[in-house]
Amino acid sequence: MKGIIEKDFLLKTKTAKRLYHEVAATQPIIDYHCHLSPELIAKDYVFQNIGELMLAGDHYKWRAIRSFGIEEELITGNADWREKFRAFATMLPFAIGNPLYHWTHLELARYFDINESLCAANADEIYDRCAARMADGSFSTKKLIERSGVEALCTTDDPQDDLHWHREIKESGWQVKVLPTFRPDKAVNIHKDTFLPYIKATGVTTYAALKTWLTARIDHFAAHGCRLSDHGLDFIPYAEGDAAAAFDKALGGEALTAAERDAYMTDLILHCAREYAKRDWCMQIHVGALRNSNTRQYRALGPDTGYDSIAETTVAEPLAKMLDALERTNELPKTILYSLNPKDNYTLATLMGGFQGGPTRGKIQLGSGWWFNDQKDGMQAQLKALGNLGVLGTFVGMLTDSRSFVSYPRHEYFRRILCSLIGEWVENGEYPDDSEALTAIVKGISYENAKRYFNFS
Amino acid sequence: MKGIIEKDFLLKTKTAKRLYHEVAATQPIIDYHCHLSPELIAKDYVFQNIGELMLAGDHYKWRAIRSFGIEEELITGNADWREKFRAFATMLPFAIGNPLYHWTHLELARYFDINESLCAANADEIYDRCAARMADGSFSTKKLIERSGVEALCTTDDPQDDLHWHREIKESGWQVKVLPTFRPDKAVNIHKDTFLPYIKATGVTTYAALKTWLTARIDHFAAHGCRLSDHGLDFIPYAEGDAAAAFDKALGGEALTAAERDAYMTDLILHCAREYAKRDWCMQIHVGALRNSNTRQYRALGPDTGYDSIAETTVAEPLAKMLDALERTNELPKTILYSLNPKDNYTLATLMGGFQGGPTRGKIQLGSGWWFNDQKDGMQAQLKALGNLGVLGTFVGMLTDSRSFVSYPRHEYFRRILCSLIGEWVENGEYPDDSEALTAIVKGISYENAKRYFNFS
Amino acid sequence: MKGIIEKDFLLKTKTAKRLYHEVAATQPIIDYHCHLSPELIAKDYVFQNIGELMLAGDHYKWRAIRSFGIEEELITGNADWREKFRAFATMLPFAIGNPLYHWTHLELARYFDINESLCAANADEIYDRCAARMADGSFSTKKLIERSGVEALCTTDDPQDDLHWHREIKESGWQVKVLPTFRPDKAVNIHKDTFLPYIKATGVTTYAALKTWLTARIDHFAAHGCRLSDHGLDFIPYAEGDAAAAFDKALGGEALTAAERDAYMTDLILHCAREYAKRDWCMQIHVGALRNSNTRQYRALGPDTGYDSIAETTVAEPLAKMLDALERTNELPKTILYSLNPKDNYTLATLMGGFQGGPTRGKIQLGSGWWFNDQKDGMQAQLKALGNLGVLGTFVGMLTDSRSFVSYPRHEYFRRILCSLIGEWVENGEYPDDSEALTAIVKGISYENAKRYFNFS
Repeated sequence: MKGIIEKDFLLKTKTAKRLYHEVAATQPIIDYHCHLSPELIAKDYVFQNIGELMLAGDHYKWRAIRSFGIEEELITGNADWREKFRAFATMLPFAIGNPLYHWTHLELARYFDINESLCAANADEIYDRCAARMADGSFSTKKLIERSGVEALCTTDDPQDDLHWHREIKESGWQVKVLPTFRPDKAVNIHKDTFLPYIKATGVTTYAALKTWLTARIDHFAAHGCRLSDHGLDFIPYAEGDAAAAFDKALGGEALTAAERDAYMTDLILHCAREYAKRDWCMQIHVGALRNSNTRQYRALGPDTGYDSIAETTVAEPLAKMLDALERTNELPKTILYSLNPKDNYTLATLMGGFQGGPTRGKIQLGSGWWFNDQKDGMQAQLKALGNLGVLGTFVGMLTDSRSFVSYPRHEYFRRILCSLIGEWVENGEYPDDSEALTAIVKGISYENAKRYFNFS
Repeated sequence: MKGIIEKDFLLKTKTAKRLYHEVAATQPIIDYHCHLSPELIAKDYVFQNIGELMLAGDHYKWRAIRSFGIEEELITGNADWREKFRAFATMLPFAIGNPLYHWTHLELARYFDINESLCAANADEIYDRCAARMADGSFSTKKLIERSGVEALCTTDDPQDDLHWHREIKESGWQVKVLPTFRPDKAVNIHKDTFLPYIKATGVTTYAALKTWLTARIDHFAAHGCRLSDHGLDFIPYAEGDAAAAFDKALGGEALTAAERDAYMTDLILHCAREYAKRDWCMQIHVGALRNSNTRQYRALGPDTGYDSIAETTVAEPLAKMLDALERTNELPKTILYSLNPKDNYTLATLMGGFQGGPTRGKIQLGSGWWFNDQKDGMQAQLKALGNLGVLGTFVGMLTDSRSFVSYPRHEYFRRILCSLIGEWVENGEYPDDSEALTAIVKGISYENAKRYFNFS
Repeated sequence: MKGIIEKDFLLKTKTAKRLYHEVAATQPIIDYHCHLSPELIAKDYVFQNIGELMLAGDHYKWRAIRSFGIEEELITGNADWREKFRAFATMLPFAIGNPLYHWTHLELARYFDINESLCAANADEIYDRCAARMADGSFSTKKLIERSGVEALCTTDDPQDDLHWHREIKESGWQVKVLPTFRPDKAVNIHKDTFLPYIKATGVTTYAALKTWLTARIDHFAAHGCRLSDHGLDFIPYAEGDAAAAFDKALGGEALTAAERDAYMTDLILHCAREYAKRDWCMQIHVGALRNSNTRQYRALGPDTGYDSIAETTVAEPLAKMLDALERTNELPKTILYSLNPKDNYTLATLMGGFQGGPTRGKIQLGSGWWFNDQKDGMQAQLKALGNLGVLGTFVGMLTDSRSFVSYPRHEYFRRILCSLIGEWVENGEYPDDSEALTAIVKGISYENAKRYFNFS
C-alpha cells in the first residue's frame, strides 16, 4: 500500500510548499541538543539491521509497543531484532495521530527509499530489504550523520567526562562539528542517590572546591568547543540560604531539609550560570519530567526506558527569581527554557519577555516542543505561543534530543510544520506574501538564527 | 427554520463521511458508564412529555437556562413542564458553540423526527407535536434504550445496593445487558459527612471487617455481571500510614489530619484495586470536580443540580505512586483515568504510558472527554492527546455518563467527531487512505475495543 | 509592498463577511475597561508624531523590540521618536504571529489610511507621511476617540481620586461618556509597600473607619456615573479571620502572617462587593499576573514597563468560596472574572456557571482574552470556552485595557475574530444559517449586551 511521505507531506498551501522546498529543505542542520554517543561516532559504528537501527534504546517506540499489549520479551527482552521489528510493525497502524507514525515512515523513506506503510503484513519483507541495503556497511554513524546534512551537533556530557571521544572525532578531521554540552546535574542534585558517589569521584571535599572544580571543567569543555550547558531539573529550586553548610551536611551523610536542598541547588546553578555568561555560552533549562514511576520496570531495565511522564511543578515564580538574581548583576547568560508540561508554554513565553534585551536577538528562548511535545500539535502550540507572546523570527529552532542516529528527519518534520503554519497565516491574510521577509524568517528559524546565536567557532 | 442535523452533520471530508456512514454508524452501543436508574428501567417507566424527558434531572441544561438570567421557578421550580420547556427553548439559540445545542437537536431528530431549530417561537408547537408522538406510551425507558441500539449499559451503584433491580431486569429476559458498577466512594471518603452513617449501615466496626465486607460486596456485584468499578475522587490521596488507626479514630468521632485521611483512603483504594485485578475488572478513576460550591442552592436543591465546577488538583505524582504501588506486585487492574481539568490530559496520557503492558491492549486508558469536556473541542483534545502520546487505535471510546434516557445520540456525536478527525488526518496526508486499517480503528473505537476490554459475560 | 488590512481581513467565510460588515462593524464601542488618562482627555492633548502616538507607554511594543535584541536607549531611552519608531519598524516583520503586527497595521490603516507593511525600509517615509497628516492638530485625544466610534469608556481610578477630570469632561458637554472605575487595590493589598502610605493619606486609623471611607468613596464614584469596580489581585486570598486585628497590626508596622493577610483582604473585598451589589455595579476581578520580575529594570523604569508575566495561582477553590460567601446572603454583584493564565479558562467558565441566575443575563461573565491573551488564539480560546461551557450569546464582549489612544481598532479585531468563528460554525453546519438569531448574537456581543449589562445612566 502507498505510504504517506509525499513530496508535499504536511504542506497544504502554495506558500508552505514554496517556503519549504525553496528555503527550508536546503538548510544545513545544527542539532544543538542531542544524546548521541560520541564513542559510537568516533568508532563509526556500523548498524546491521533496521531493528537495531530503529528500536535500540528508543523508548518512545517501546512505550507504544507496550501500549498495544505486547509482552516485554518482544520489546526489551531476548527476542531477536526481526521479531522486535515485527512487533513494532504490528502496533504501528494503530498509532494513528502519533508522531512515531510519521518519524518511522520518514526514516524508511529518507534512509531506505521505502515509502510503504509499515504493518504486520510487510514487516518481514521490509526487514529483509533494509538488511540488503545495509549489507555494504554504509549505515555507519558518520555516514548517517553526513547523509542527513548535519553541520554541527552537540552531545550531552558529564563534567567528569574527559571528552576524549570528542577530541578523537575532531582530530580525525571529520567535516561535522561534534561538540560537548556541559550538564552538571549530578553535582546539582544533592538530594539524589547519585550525589555522594559523584562528589567522591571529583575528589573535592568543600563547596568552594566544588565550585572551583566546576569552573575548571567548564574551561575544559570550552577548550573542546563547548558553547552550551544543560540543566535537567525535576523542579525549579529557587531559595536563598547557606549552600556550603548544606554541602557539608550532605557530605556528612545527613538528610537535608527542602530549604537546604534548594539553597544549595540555587547557589550552584547561579555559580554555573555566571561562568556561562562570562564565556557567552547558552544555558538550557529542562524542567518538568516525572521520572521512573514504574519501580518494577525501573529495577529491571534502569532509567530512560519509557517510564517517565509529565510532572506538575510551579515554574513561574522560582524561575523569575533565578533569572532576576542573574540579571541584577548583568550576569544572565543566553538561556533556553524548556518545560515538559505544555501548561507552561504561556508562562515561560511571557516570563522570558521580561529578561530580553540587546545586543542578542532572542536572548531568552522558548525551547522547541520537548519530548512528549515533539509532535505536530506540540510544535504548533510552541510556535503559536512564541508567535503570540514573543518575536518568532528570532527563534533558534529545532533539535532532536535523540539517542537515535536516524532521527534527523525530525528536523524535516519540524520545518514542514513551520512552513505549513506560516503558509496558513499568509494565505489567511494574516501576514503579507512578502517573499523576502518570509525567506528571512524561515531561513533564520531553520538554520541561521542558531548559527548566530550559538556562534560555534 | 431548517435545523442542523443533516446526514453529514460534522462530517466534512469524504473519508469522514465514508467512515461514519459505512462503519461507525452501524456499530452497537456499549455504554459502559452512566447514571441511569435501574429502577426506571426495570419498571419500564413511560415519559409523557418532552419537558420531563429532556429536562428532568439534566443539570447541564439547568445551568444554561440560569446563565440566560431565567428565574429558578422555571428551571427546578413549580412551573409546569411546558413552561420549563419554553424557558429552555428561549435560551437555546443563544447557546451557540455549546454541545447542548447539538444534543438537543439530535434528541429531537432521532426520537421525534423533528429537525427544526428549537427557539421561543416554536417551543409550544414542538412541545405539542412531541406530546402527540408520546401519547401511545412508546417513550418508555426500555423502548428508548432499544431504539438507540444499545447492547449493554453499566449503571453506577453503591456497594450496599442489593442489585434487585438489576436482577429483575435480567430475569425479565430483556435483550439489553444492564450491569452494575461498583462505586465505593462513601466508604472511601472518610472526611465527608456521609462516612459515619454509611459505615453504621454496613454494621462493621473494624477496618479489617470493612475490607472483608467490601470484598464480599465485590463478589455480590460480580455475581450480577459487574465488570467495572468507579472511584470519584475530589483529589488523588496517595499516602502511606496506619489506615486502621485512622478508621478507629474517625469512628470515635475524632477529626483526622490530612495525612491520616490520605493514608486511610489510599489503603482502602489499594485494597479494592487488588480485588478488581483478581477478577479482571476495570477500575475507573474520576478526579477533579469541585462540588456544591453554591451553598444557598445546595441547601435548596441538594447535590447534582448544576453547582459543580472544575477543581485544580495535583494528579501526576500521587497517581503515579498509586499505580506503582499496585504494579510492584503485579496487582494493577485495567484502569481508566478521567480528569475534569483539561490541563491533565497530557499528564495522564503520559503517566499511563509507564504502566502499559501485555497482554491487554490499552490496559491503562485515557477516559473520553468527561462532563464539561464532553463536547467537540474537549473530545478532540482527548483524542489528540491520546493520539500523540499513546496508541489511539486501542481506545475503548465513548460513554454517556448521563442520567437521561435520550442521551444515546452522544455516541453518534462522538463517532461523527472521531470520523471527522480521522478523515482530516487522512485527507491531509497524515495517515494513508487504507480502508482496512481505518475500518479496524473506527470499528474498534466505536465498539469492538470496549467489547474486548470489558469482556462482559 | 502591499499590506494586510484588506476589507475582509480575518474573514474567510461568506457568513463571517456578512455578519461583520452588516452587523458588527457598525456598532458603537463601549470600552468598559481601559487605562486612558482622563487628564489627557479633558485637556484634549494633541499628538505630534506617530512615534509618540504608537510607542509612548506601550509596553507590549517595548517587549517585542527588546526581544529583537535592540538596546534600551532606542526603546525607553533618550533616542528621539523617529529613531524609536525606526527601531520598532525594524523588529516588526519578524513578529509574525504576534497581535502587534495586526494592531500596528490596523492603526496605520484606520487613522492614517496607510496600508503598507511597516519595516525598516519604509519607516522614515511612513513617519514623515504621518507627521504631515498630524500637523493640523487633528490627532487630539478627543478627536481620536470620536473618530473611533466610542459611545462610552471607563477609565481605571483610585478611590482617592476626586474625579475632577471626569467632572470637567462631563461638564464640557462632550458626547462621549467618560466614566470612572473604582479600583481599591492599594487599600486591599495590605502586604505591599504601598499600603501604609495609602492608608495614611486617607486619614483613617481603624478598620471600621476604612470601610466607612471606602463606602463614601463608592458613593462619590457613583455620583460621577461609575458602574464598575476592578480588583487586580496577584492571587485569590479567601480566608476567614479577624480583619480588624490584621489592620491594626499592619498599621503598627508589624509583619502579617499569610492567614492574617488573607483574612484582611477577603473581608475588605467582601465589604466592597456588598456595596457594589447594592448599587447594581459590576465587580471585575483580574487575577494571575506576576509583576516586576526584573528588579534591575524595575528600579530603572518603574512598574508597567514590560516586566510582568503570567503567574501560576490556584483560583478555583478560593474564588468559589468568595462568590459563595456573597451568594449566601444574596449579595453577589454582577461579576466579570479575568485570569491571565489561560489554564484557568475552563476552571472559571465552569465555576461561574454555579453562580448564575435571574434576572440578569450572563450575571457572571468570563472576561475577554486579557493582556497576553488579547490575540486571535487567546480570543478564540476564551470564546470557545465560554461557548462550550456557558451561553456565549450573553457575553458582554471586548474592552481595550489599553493606555493608548489608538487602540480602538482592537474592537474591530475582536469583532472580526468573533464573526470569523461564528461563520465557521455556521458553514460547518454546527449552527443554522438563521440571520435573525445570528444578528442578535453578534449585535449583542459587539454592543447591546454591554449596554444592557452595565446600564450606564
